[in-house]
Amino acid sequence: MSTISEEFIARLGDALGASNLVSDPEHLASYASDETPGGEPRSPTLAVTPQNTAQVSATLRLAREYGVPVTPRGAGTGLSQGCVPSSGGLVLSLEKMNRILEIDGAGFTASVEPGVSLAALAEALAAVGLAYPVHPGEMTASVGGTVATNAGGMNAVKHGVTRHQILGLEAVLASGEVITTGGAYVKCASGYDLTQLITGSEGTLAVVTRVTLKLTRLSACREVLFIPFDRLEDAVGAVAEILKLPETPYGIEFFERGILDIVAEYLGAELPYREHAAFLMVLMEGDAADAVHEYFAAVDAVCQRHGAAPSMVPGSQRARRKLLDAREKFLPALRRYTALEILDIVVPRARIAGFVSQTREIGERYGIRVITYGHAGDGNVHLHPVGIGLSQAAWRERLPELMRELYQAGIALGGAVSGEHGIGLAKKAYLPIGCSPETLNLMRAVKQAFDPTNIMNPGKIFD
Amino acid sequence: MSTISEEFIARLGDALGASNLVSDPEHLASYASDETPGGEPRSPTLAVTPQNTAQVSATLRLAREYGVPVTPRGAGTGLSQGCVPSSGGLVLSLEKMNRILEIDGAGFTASVEPGVSLAALAEALAAVGLAYPVHPGEMTASVGGTVATNAGGMNAVKHGVTRHQILGLEAVLASGEVITTGGAYVKCASGYDLTQLITGSEGTLAVVTRVTLKLTRLSACREVLFIPFDRLEDAVGAVAEILKLPETPYGIEFFERGILDIVAEYLGAELPYREHAAFLMVLMEGDAADAVHEYFAAVDAVCQRHGAAPSMVPGSQRARRKLLDAREKFLPALRRYTALEILDIVVPRARIAGFVSQTREIGERYGIRVITYGHAGDGNVHLHPVGIGLSQAAWRERLPELMRELYQAGIALGGAVSGEHGIGLAKKAYLPIGCSPETLNLMRAVKQAFDPTNIMNPGKIFD
Repeated sequence: MSTISEEFIARLGDALGASNLVSDPEHLASYASDETPGGEPRSPTLAVTPQNTAQVSATLRLAREYGVPVTPRGAGTGLSQGCVPSSGGLVLSLEKMNRILEIDGAGFTASVEPGVSLAALAEALAAVGLAYPVHPGEMTASVGGTVATNAGGMNAVKHGVTRHQILGLEAVLASGEVITTGGAYVKCASGYDLTQLITGSEGTLAVVTRVTLKLTRLSACREVLFIPFDRLEDAVGAVAEILKLPETPYGIEFFERGILDIVAEYLGAELPYREHAAFLMVLMEGDAADAVHEYFAAVDAVCQRHGAAPSMVPGSQRARRKLLDAREKFLPALRRYTALEILDIVVPRARIAGFVSQTREIGERYGIRVITYGHAGDGNVHLHPVGIGLSQAAWRERLPELMRELYQAGIALGGAVSGEHGIGLAKKAYLPIGCSPETLNLMRAVKQAFDPTNIMNPGKIFD
Repeated sequence: MSTISEEFIARLGDALGASNLVSDPEHLASYASDETPGGEPRSPTLAVTPQNTAQVSATLRLAREYGVPVTPRGAGTGLSQGCVPSSGGLVLSLEKMNRILEIDGAGFTASVEPGVSLAALAEALAAVGLAYPVHPGEMTASVGGTVATNAGGMNAVKHGVTRHQILGLEAVLASGEVITTGGAYVKCASGYDLTQLITGSEGTLAVVTRVTLKLTRLSACREVLFIPFDRLEDAVGAVAEILKLPETPYGIEFFERGILDIVAEYLGAELPYREHAAFLMVLMEGDAADAVHEYFAAVDAVCQRHGAAPSMVPGSQRARRKLLDAREKFLPALRRYTALEILDIVVPRARIAGFVSQTREIGERYGIRVITYGHAGDGNVHLHPVGIGLSQAAWRERLPELMRELYQAGIALGGAVSGEHGIGLAKKAYLPIGCSPETLNLMRAVKQAFDPTNIMNPGKIFD
């Protein structure tokens, strides 16, 4: 744990102004955690809320001079404790840098500060017929946070994940130096791609102070097709063929019956089709409902060949919203229901069914139920080992070994530890299952190149 | 210039076998250059042609031990001298590692060795209804070479560039250690993205020995719409609106009349529409010609509003092929026609017209004609300052300053030095125009982290 000197605080106050320093314990406590289930809160010693790049630079310059660890923070909606100040020190919250600087409708780009929320961005873009297609589910997330974790979500089938939409960055290095990387173009072959290196580095390499985003046009309509199956294998088996149709949906989700029961209870609402074992949801956008429904007819034909029950398109916007809401409520419903852990292993898409059945067997051996659902279109599987019918203590005791086995199973299938949540503190112990010592050493050397005195979010991703 | 000891050669022979060593001067001379116009050939002292990853690893281990610089080489079709062994030493040619290891039709991925050509890959994929969408124009290029330069090309509007299709790598570090990065999935938030860092690093960080590629389905038909305009500004001005249509073309190219005259002469063929000043070519794919033609009708309507002459879809496959061939012959035609330099500056797409008109003015001041054409859909502009009506000596004398001004103009518009050809040796002097000293130092530090003794393609990108 670092200590922070009065002199450091005084100089920080001179540089940023007293209104951008936070030392009140109650306020500091609000920077102590993110949304990681069971994550232990850890308050920083001090926090700053810089208003511009120069203040971020001044903060890092001083932090380096005084050897104070800096934990950058967006909206705190992460699921891996990436923004938890585990080494104490200083939280650098980007909440005041929340402006949309430019929307270029002709170039399909926007330039924003990191503190802007996905919700605010979506609203501003929709007003001019544009969209930012990454949808990690939590619209209060800040753009900067999604850059730090390379956030994914439901739309990755068509639009990819955060890193595919980030064209350029302004970032402040541990030295206080400000760099710009990339720009408002998709093609670049001009030296190392620092944009992509910083994206997903969880605040361990630099503090992002401006983001140039790639946009898409806003589609006039978005529709959902809901397809019940009697076996998960059949549901997942249909996905490759769906993706061979001429058009690409923005998302394909899968889930099993178990989660529906829990969500129905959470929402206090009756959900349809609970007699079936597994489900696909195909998410499509287009300019006319007719064209989307034509596409759904083709998807339905594929699914029927794979043993699906009749598929269903919600008949009203309200019914559609209800269905999507139910999907987005999986995590909060589980959170309320039981002691919770969340994994987000990614495997090659065609191996989802095999992976899920392995996770079931592994869970059974531990007497812990592993609920799975996720992104069938991109291989990202969310796993919740839930402590139903088990004492909290017994669950907690068995959890680490169970998780290790689940990760090993995913990696053995050619997967990775985290598809979209990041490693942070929460998954750090498990990253070596999927990364060789040579690879981890290389990451450490890169970290050292950026941040030789290790002040940038130390202890995250790896030690 | 390094020297290579007899002992080093003997140990290399032991490790790889004599048949994988090249020391014959004539054969070595074939590794002395790529296709950079005017690039000075530089033969290596020795070359190796390893047949597998273990042999690449053995080569690098020995090279590091003996301090021998290593220049990795694909098919040698580059345009920036990235694979020219400027420090002498050893060329590591990946020509024998040219196997397609796996094509996963359900997962839309392939795993290939770096020496496979784009042509061979395309053929194998087409046989199973798949495609690798990156099309830098030169189908004899090796996949490994395209990874090294982050090659772009005409299809970037819909499919992005090489880095967007690279899901994972196996690579050998300067230490001889073999790492694997990424995998057969699009989502990953598990530590730094070394896949993206190595992609585009021009062989200065690691030697890529296996590539996992993202594939697309093969469309049944590909068509071209050819649209003449009287002003380049009008042509480029139509692009944003074309991209707001519901469907996305795979490419939008622009060119001016001047290049048509040169290509017509080169091909000895009459090309149509030469009374117009500027042209767009919109490249679209689909499953039925009717749907593509419907799309073209919508594009035509947009272009008419922007002052276009009537557009034309080639009436036969032969006519279509002729038109695309003419586009692909721009570079060889220019090469035969005149002393040549080639720049591939990228600017934000909406700024192409302004940039082209600036390049014209700059050229006029130097008495050098700057021919431009390129990828209107992604802002990548090819510029050829041609020595027409000027002595070779005068042209060559004026060239460096002219190029500097062209780069400065592109950078001032928010662009970058190279969109798709890479920096290599040829553009090294110009990279600092678009990269701050801090950014370059950061790249050097990253290079140092990977390759502390600087044996990997030294002297490329930066000093």
